[in-house]
Amino acid sequence: MKIGLIGLGKMGYNLGLNLMDHGHEVVANDVNADQIKEIANAGAVPAHSLKELVENLEAPRTVWVMVPAGEITQSVLDELSGLLEAGDRVIDGGNSNYKDSLRRAEQFKEKDMFFFDVGTSGGTEGARHGGCFMIGGDEEQFKEIEPIFADTSVENGYHYAGRAASGHFLKMVHNGIEYGMMQSIAEGYEILEKSPFDYDYEAVSKVWNNGSVIRSWLIELMESAFSKDAKLEDIRGVMNSSGEGKWTLETAIEYEMAAPVIAMSLMTRYRSQEDDTFSGKVVAALRNEFGGHAVVKK
Amino acid sequence: MKIGLIGLGKMGYNLGLNLMDHGHEVVANDVNADQIKEIANAGAVPAHSLKELVENLEAPRTVWVMVPAGEITQSVLDELSGLLEAGDRVIDGGNSNYKDSLRRAEQFKEKDMFFFDVGTSGGTEGARHGGCFMIGGDEEQFKEIEPIFADTSVENGYHYAGRAASGHFLKMVHNGIEYGMMQSIAEGYEILEKSPFDYDYEAVSKVWNNGSVIRSWLIELMESAFSKDAKLEDIRGVMNSSGEGKWTLETAIEYEMAAPVIAMSLMTRYRSQEDDTFSGKVVAALRNEFGGHAVVKK
Repeated sequence: MKIGLIGLGKMGYNLGLNLMDHGHEVVANDVNADQIKEIANAGAVPAHSLKELVENLEAPRTVWVMVPAGEITQSVLDELSGLLEAGDRVIDGGNSNYKDSLRRAEQFKEKDMFFFDVGTSGGTEGARHGGCFMIGGDEEQFKEIEPIFADTSVENGYHYAGRAASGHFLKMVHNGIEYGMMQSIAEGYEILEKSPFDYDYEAVSKVWNNGSVIRSWLIELMESAFSKDAKLEDIRGVMNSSGEGKWTLETAIEYEMAAPVIAMSLMTRYRSQEDDTFSGKVVAALRNEFGGHAVVKK
Repeated sequence: MKIGLIGLGKMGYNLGLNLMDHGHEVVANDVNADQIKEIANAGAVPAHSLKELVENLEAPRTVWVMVPAGEITQSVLDELSGLLEAGDRVIDGGNSNYKDSLRRAEQFKEKDMFFFDVGTSGGTEGARHGGCFMIGGDEEQFKEIEPIFADTSVENGYHYAGRAASGHFLKMVHNGIEYGMMQSIAEGYEILEKSPFDYDYEAVSKVWNNGSVIRSWLIELMESAFSKDAKLEDIRGVMNSSGEGKWTLETAIEYEMAAPVIAMSLMTRYRSQEDDTFSGKVVAALRNEFGGHAVVKK
């Protein structure tokens, strides 16, 4: 197929190469002209504006948007909806909030265009050599573009999840699960580190990845990380996050359900971003007030 | 090698077959005579008492104990220590508490016998066709019995972790991590279930296992579980536990370190075992006292 690709960052660029590997023609755009030049050298048709990109595609067009979630995605989609025609299809492959996707699907539908929300997992390596796609949108139209996902995913690595927003919702929950799994793994290694034993964490990760119940890609990644820095001495334990864990917890709260592990994993990340906490000062002050317990002075 | 095997339950019986597949001679004992008969039919030498088992082995003997942790393990080890000679080796392949293993290793050492604490993961299928072993004990003696573990594990599925008790400690932490991973996965599926979307959980599990960040054996097991019961309608959400998660949390508390996700995953299991809670009644009563909020009457 001939596919428009907007966004040539780490994910989009690799996805473009992946698409071309599978015989698709890629018309590529980015805000950065150097990126356009580079992918053009790799065989893509360069498009220096969204208008040029749309003009280089034939109806019904398929445009894959791979830009950061939020304002940038919104402005690209707004511009696209003015350039595309009825019957055209837009794929949002970024980590958009599913509520935005729900609204956007409605907006494109009003113009008889089709919007697909596609959660993408597997990192840049996945984008390049086989990703994992969770897809929401019109089912019949999905069949028309299914080959794109079949070609660029690992085997069995794409799933039509249902109506609009179900793809991004599924990806959000995937990330929420990821937070809890990561924190649980992390606490386990910390207990080993505080133990009187002298473990080789790379070797521990390796045996856990071969035949144990917790074998997983995340522990494979730890095997790799410990092979480079046996005690992680070169990094600090500051844990940032990009939003999907927060949305997962907000969703659980919206449904008024208990999700204590995902909640704690998110809050542990927030705590890691502070050197000191006001709540810590409050508890220290109270202990001092009622029991005269010493406080640690600044 | 010629190996004594005590305990022919689900794990021990399968391990016995696995050992024989790899050309080892197995002298087998169990409290249940039927189990001894069955494994004898499969080629093992039957031993109807620990004395008979020990007599059927030549020094230095190797005896693998695969019985439930706690009293049964203790009584088998006590009896064995009276029957074995200096230079003999005992493997505890059960889920013993590492503190017991520490003490037992000392006791066997006093008699110049060698004790190995071996954490075993991978379930009955692992015991039969390739398990995952985390091994603590004397390093030189370990080399003498290493072929047993190399033969009965999956590739790269055994690890000499260090001195006495380091194997059972590592297995304990493995299980603690497992608790948190399971609870995180579980919360994710519950958010999907409470969402307005209509997910096919078997298909969701399948796509998550192909290329996503959370791909893992646990989600493979969920794919299998959902293939048999698409909404898990036949089971209740009562989560039992067998002790290792509790020991992991006790260890974190002993080290005075934060392990909130492992803690919450354990307490979520305890909560699931109660139909109602006294703490729930207390909160309901307080809300009624200060604000006149209605309580749910029995």
